[in-house]
Amino acid sequence: MFDAVSVIESKRDGREVPGDQIAGMVRAYLADEVSDAQMAAFFMAGVLQGFTVAEAAALADAYVASGEVVDLSSLRGPTVDKHSTGGVGDTTTFVVGPIVAACGRQLAKLSGRGLGHTGGTLDKLQAIPGLRVDLSPAEVRDQVESVGLAVAAATADIVPADKRTYALRDVTGTVPSRALIAASIMSKKLAGGAQTVVLDVKVGDGAFLPAPDVARDLAELCVGIGEAHGRRTSAVVTDMSQPLGRAIGNALEVREAVRILQGGAGALRDVSIALAARMLELTGDENGVASATAALDDGRALEAFRAMVTAQGGDVRAIDEPDAVLASAPIIQDVPAPRAGNLAHVACKDLGLLSVRMGAGRLSLDDVVDPAVGLEVLVRIGDEVEVGQPIARVHAADRAGADAAAAKVIEALVIGDDPVDAVPLLHAVVG
Amino acid sequence: MFDAVSVIESKRDGREVPGDQIAGMVRAYLADEVSDAQMAAFFMAGVLQGFTVAEAAALADAYVASGEVVDLSSLRGPTVDKHSTGGVGDTTTFVVGPIVAACGRQLAKLSGRGLGHTGGTLDKLQAIPGLRVDLSPAEVRDQVESVGLAVAAATADIVPADKRTYALRDVTGTVPSRALIAASIMSKKLAGGAQTVVLDVKVGDGAFLPAPDVARDLAELCVGIGEAHGRRTSAVVTDMSQPLGRAIGNALEVREAVRILQGGAGALRDVSIALAARMLELTGDENGVASATAALDDGRALEAFRAMVTAQGGDVRAIDEPDAVLASAPIIQDVPAPRAGNLAHVACKDLGLLSVRMGAGRLSLDDVVDPAVGLEVLVRIGDEVEVGQPIARVHAADRAGADAAAAKVIEALVIGDDPVDAVPLLHAVVG
Repeated sequence: MFDAVSVIESKRDGREVPGDQIAGMVRAYLADEVSDAQMAAFFMAGVLQGFTVAEAAALADAYVASGEVVDLSSLRGPTVDKHSTGGVGDTTTFVVGPIVAACGRQLAKLSGRGLGHTGGTLDKLQAIPGLRVDLSPAEVRDQVESVGLAVAAATADIVPADKRTYALRDVTGTVPSRALIAASIMSKKLAGGAQTVVLDVKVGDGAFLPAPDVARDLAELCVGIGEAHGRRTSAVVTDMSQPLGRAIGNALEVREAVRILQGGAGALRDVSIALAARMLELTGDENGVASATAALDDGRALEAFRAMVTAQGGDVRAIDEPDAVLASAPIIQDVPAPRAGNLAHVACKDLGLLSVRMGAGRLSLDDVVDPAVGLEVLVRIGDEVEVGQPIARVHAADRAGADAAAAKVIEALVIGDDPVDAVPLLHAVVG
Repeated sequence: MFDAVSVIESKRDGREVPGDQIAGMVRAYLADEVSDAQMAAFFMAGVLQGFTVAEAAALADAYVASGEVVDLSSLRGPTVDKHSTGGVGDTTTFVVGPIVAACGRQLAKLSGRGLGHTGGTLDKLQAIPGLRVDLSPAEVRDQVESVGLAVAAATADIVPADKRTYALRDVTGTVPSRALIAASIMSKKLAGGAQTVVLDVKVGDGAFLPAPDVARDLAELCVGIGEAHGRRTSAVVTDMSQPLGRAIGNALEVREAVRILQGGAGALRDVSIALAARMLELTGDENGVASATAALDDGRALEAFRAMVTAQGGDVRAIDEPDAVLASAPIIQDVPAPRAGNLAHVACKDLGLLSVRMGAGRLSLDDVVDPAVGLEVLVRIGDEVEVGQPIARVHAADRAGADAAAAKVIEALVIGDDPVDAVPLLHAVVG
């Protein structure tokens, strides 16, 4: 029988637990030889005493060992992967993936559904009629080999230990440990099989861990875990004090990603270029920013996205004639500025939750998502606005919902008298 | 459904949890609406963030509410109770109980079995042939009314929440919380029904919590909990850096208690007088020490013990002709000092564990205890010894066991060159 009590006591008393003991603890937990109560006590001890990078790496390792690992070794090109810690209006996957595929990298991304105040990549993709996300590992591999890019649902066979421990942490107050979050994130990236991993760690009101020092710590832990497993890993700390793109909602975000892929400007373009550039740099391109920018500007990235949509059975008119096939809300209504001034603050998380409540996301796992609804936020922090100027647009299922949403949007977009500086998009690069 | 996660998060983040929420948590736990994992996470958060006296009192209250409470209100005299945090050679109940009964107090003591390195009061009592410990609540009450004293087994109906939470803490590394220990101790005393409670909190190598500051903290928590429930409560912090009596083992400790009740000297007498005096003082006798000493010296305490043994069906020859009825080990062997010098240090816990391994105690709950075996330690810290002088005596089941025990005893009794001060017996009185 595994001696769980000694491991718990070590962590409780602030000692580092050796990797083999962490591996043993997770193995025994999955074999039902260590109880939920023992694992919960261990996690709480770690939440309060902290876990080292080595402990987090051992946890990630044990999670990976609990399930299947995607084998990308037969692919020709440099394999890359990305992960965002989650934000509002964050559609970078649909821009970054096509850029790096256009530049000869191979990205096999396993994604999840939206939960909480952030949207889910799979929900956004499925706003495109016909598009399949339930690809088998062989289908993912073949598609990545042919078009450089696939975005599919993570199967239950990938890191089951992460799913089980997350469910336990969720009910025992042990979610907010940077090391446990890092182990959870990185276990999925390690099992995903890519040799190079770039993380987008969000800071600000709309992030899961809003404080910059916490985000930086998380970034360092993730990079440490990746490096400990021989993956080239880098984290870009980016701003989430306001929605990244102007769209929040599934079909709306697809439209916006296409707009950026067609050469449109905005924060979503800038952060996507930064993330794609870091992937290119880690895989041998010294001029990552120039290469990424070129792939966007000359239409190659858009072609890569079109190839992916086609390969996954999606209707490409979503790109070329979006109004013909993407869902559209019955009520689309501008929100005028209630006063003149400067946009001082955005309640970013509230906007995400508002969009979820309008039907764009899930409050519980069995909620059904409405692809059409959501918000467009037309101003950014620091912008000067006139009274009556449209500062947002609500896309709602009905008139009452639109009016209620508009009122919430006005609360969330705080206009002040004093001039306000624009917020920098990129805070730090780690690794 | 009770919101356990909020309570766990409050404690995790260092906030005080209101009493009604602690009560709700324990109630929901016993109703299986809060899981073992949630309770373990809550306890670990408390181990690391600390519990306040108010939280500990609320826990004790919730434990008491989980089961039956002994009703002593029909008794005439002042009702008193005692508890020792556990030590080696600690037979004070058999001396203190008779003293206070002889002085007109009424003591209904519910005791447990030995576990770990300390002996159990019930095991010691049952070294007396015929003596019953499974008294019903009515029998306990009647016996206390007639002879002033009863020592019986705690039934499963008394504070079941304490039993269940202790079992959980035991496997989740959450035992060493002063507040949780205090809540556990005091819940049993509160349910025991006495209006006055005196605690013997041990410090030193043979104690469960050896550090003086920790013991003092525990004493203050216990007194705080008792006072919060309207019981006169006091704690005496006493020394356990060496066995209290010279005997360790069940029949051996009965013989030693009788020796003290017959007027014999020693640390066991001194600590027993201090504890009994505190009980007498809290119940109206300003001259507690004098009264306790008189009850020992004039034989009234011995008579009270004889009355208790008789009332519980025990063979009183255990008192008057112990060799005729108390078990005696086949091999009794002196341990000579390996060198001359001064007794500098005693590995007190090791002596307790040695006695357990010889058969006097339990390593697991279903072990059977041998009443005959054990040790006598004939020297105390600071004593000058000659080479070859008997410093201990082993009472073993066989020759090999005796030789092995003798070797361990020599390791545990550390003789040095320099003069050493005797260790004070009484460290502090709290409350």
